[in-house]
Amino acid sequence: MRVYFDNAATTAMDGRVVEAMIPFMKDHYGNPSSVHSHGREVRTAIERARKKVAELLNASPSEIFFTSGGTEADNTALVCGIETYGIQHAITSAIEHHAVLHTLEHCAQKGKVKLSLVKVNEKGDIDLDHLEELLRSNPNSMVSIMHANNEIGNINDLSAIGKLVKNYGGFFHSDTVQTMGHYEHDLKTLPVDSLVAGGHKFHGPKGSGFLYIRKDKKIHPFIYGGAQERNMRGGTENVIGIVGIAKALELAYEDMSGHRAHIENLKKHFIESLKQQIPEVSFNGRSAEMQHSLYTVLNVSLPYSEENSGMLLFNLDLNGISASGGSACSSGASVGSHVLRSLKADPQRESVRFSFSRFNTIEEVNYTVEKLKELYGVPA
Amino acid sequence: MRVYFDNAATTAMDGRVVEAMIPFMKDHYGNPSSVHSHGREVRTAIERARKKVAELLNASPSEIFFTSGGTEADNTALVCGIETYGIQHAITSAIEHHAVLHTLEHCAQKGKVKLSLVKVNEKGDIDLDHLEELLRSNPNSMVSIMHANNEIGNINDLSAIGKLVKNYGGFFHSDTVQTMGHYEHDLKTLPVDSLVAGGHKFHGPKGSGFLYIRKDKKIHPFIYGGAQERNMRGGTENVIGIVGIAKALELAYEDMSGHRAHIENLKKHFIESLKQQIPEVSFNGRSAEMQHSLYTVLNVSLPYSEENSGMLLFNLDLNGISASGGSACSSGASVGSHVLRSLKADPQRESVRFSFSRFNTIEEVNYTVEKLKELYGVPA
Repeated sequence: MRVYFDNAATTAMDGRVVEAMIPFMKDHYGNPSSVHSHGREVRTAIERARKKVAELLNASPSEIFFTSGGTEADNTALVCGIETYGIQHAITSAIEHHAVLHTLEHCAQKGKVKLSLVKVNEKGDIDLDHLEELLRSNPNSMVSIMHANNEIGNINDLSAIGKLVKNYGGFFHSDTVQTMGHYEHDLKTLPVDSLVAGGHKFHGPKGSGFLYIRKDKKIHPFIYGGAQERNMRGGTENVIGIVGIAKALELAYEDMSGHRAHIENLKKHFIESLKQQIPEVSFNGRSAEMQHSLYTVLNVSLPYSEENSGMLLFNLDLNGISASGGSACSSGASVGSHVLRSLKADPQRESVRFSFSRFNTIEEVNYTVEKLKELYGVPA
Repeated sequence: MRVYFDNAATTAMDGRVVEAMIPFMKDHYGNPSSVHSHGREVRTAIERARKKVAELLNASPSEIFFTSGGTEADNTALVCGIETYGIQHAITSAIEHHAVLHTLEHCAQKGKVKLSLVKVNEKGDIDLDHLEELLRSNPNSMVSIMHANNEIGNINDLSAIGKLVKNYGGFFHSDTVQTMGHYEHDLKTLPVDSLVAGGHKFHGPKGSGFLYIRKDKKIHPFIYGGAQERNMRGGTENVIGIVGIAKALELAYEDMSGHRAHIENLKKHFIESLKQQIPEVSFNGRSAEMQHSLYTVLNVSLPYSEENSGMLLFNLDLNGISASGGSACSSGASVGSHVLRSLKADPQRESVRFSFSRFNTIEEVNYTVEKLKELYGVPA
């Protein structure tokens, strides 16, 4: 059996997304900036995609900018938000994705901003009192707090954070890569200034993404060049990526509650089975609390065992199970997880992130629990 | 008849490129940063693509970094080259692509560099004496001169320019978007520090590109995030784009001289026919000189006519012919061409860029000349 439980790293493309992209590989190849018929037919597809994304998020098409992925979108919002508004102080947390953390660290190294980290407890909760303290001392900050953590699955309260940031005149950016396509985002009510998506996290293509920026925030481009994306991003558009991400988001919204119910069921069963079968199992962050974590992520902490120490992912892989230790978005298990370190997770224990999609099955969960039992020498 | 003569804006994908990409849309979906089997099979494809590109360019795989296109690659080399080396002066020309020009203008606006423009004559030739003068007064400059101009097709002597820049301790970047896949680049002998490619200019996918940086130049990333591209570009890789651009470059090199001969033949025939059929036709830049211009580009200047004034591209389009006024990479004809303005082209005359690929035919050339004759009321 081959099991793919690394959907927070990337997902398989939906066949319907592939079908939507292929005509733009085979037939419609014009440059969307060209005014002739070959160009116009492609431009129409891009603007239709933008309209679809905007509609699903309750935003305006003029607020959606297509990028090469979530990481570029995060860089754009943070670097250009800071530069455009002359922002001198930034706030984030130590458990953000590197797309945010490394970008802000680089801004700080270059002396553009002073960077403060909001406190996070051992469950991965953001300390909102500390955030307010930081904002009070540093009004007009750039604040970047993710919607949900990619490793432990914790979901943050964007409404509460956004209101705080607004009260102190800040710019609120949220890395929503893990929730886009899995949760609804209503941008008429959500108090964020910008958020991002990466298409490959919800069955769209790798190399596709978008940045939402609220109408009243105008930032300068990150990538300079032609007049594409209404002068906001130079470079010929990744047409198939744009068509693909819009189709993927459309499909995600079409039956979000159905998919959610299916995946929640898998996750609950996984948690219950592990608790029953593996003594001393525990869960990192809030990932086992259904109401406070992504339904797509379960971060399992397993007791020390000589056979599996530093080898658990490898042993799972030998059994055909693909999972991840911490974030597989960068270099997988090899460098360890900055998130688990921040949560002061016991380094003696092995942590594995299992992450799910609508393509997973209950049989895959049972098989995986069975293999974990074997690896941990639990008698049948 | 529907004729696509806008190949300098973008090209149709080669069917073999599409075939190479599809398995990575349908079957191999792992994240290349994941250490498990789903990830490794994709990582292998990326590294094979990198090796292929490096091999074709006589470079090392460690010198090739995949990007979202030529524009991002230009931005990376320029912005990060300037920052990493603390470069305080940059030199380019007024007829560079906006990916270079707008990027350097933004660096200058932010006070990072002083920007000088090297003189260009009315034929679009770079004034090498002036370049040396600028370098003598400003050693250690960032110099960005394109290999060939996307609008008029003029080819610059990268060896001569590169030697000059080296003599004065500069960093030499070249936007090679228009020559990559159409001319051979031997990076063991070509004296450039960095150059770029956009896959869609040679029958690969839009949204794919790469940056070559010579081994001895180490610059910091442009997009921060995960450890992808050996810590040089954060963000999950556009796997299909990478597979596609490498395949497209491989196909381009497989029969470059055959394709060149075919296209040169079209271009020569086009020039001769126009000279015979349309009185007062002329050609912008050096585009009609086969040895000094891209074989893929012909920039035609047509006499004033009331019927076609400001309407020529539209009239061609009505006849099924897709061509471009200046660079179609940004917003087509509507804003006019900064290149033709720099060359002091007569604004009363209409300029059209016809650009060719190996998929074009002699019949398409004849049809287009015929339609131009009709539009200009030349008696049959």
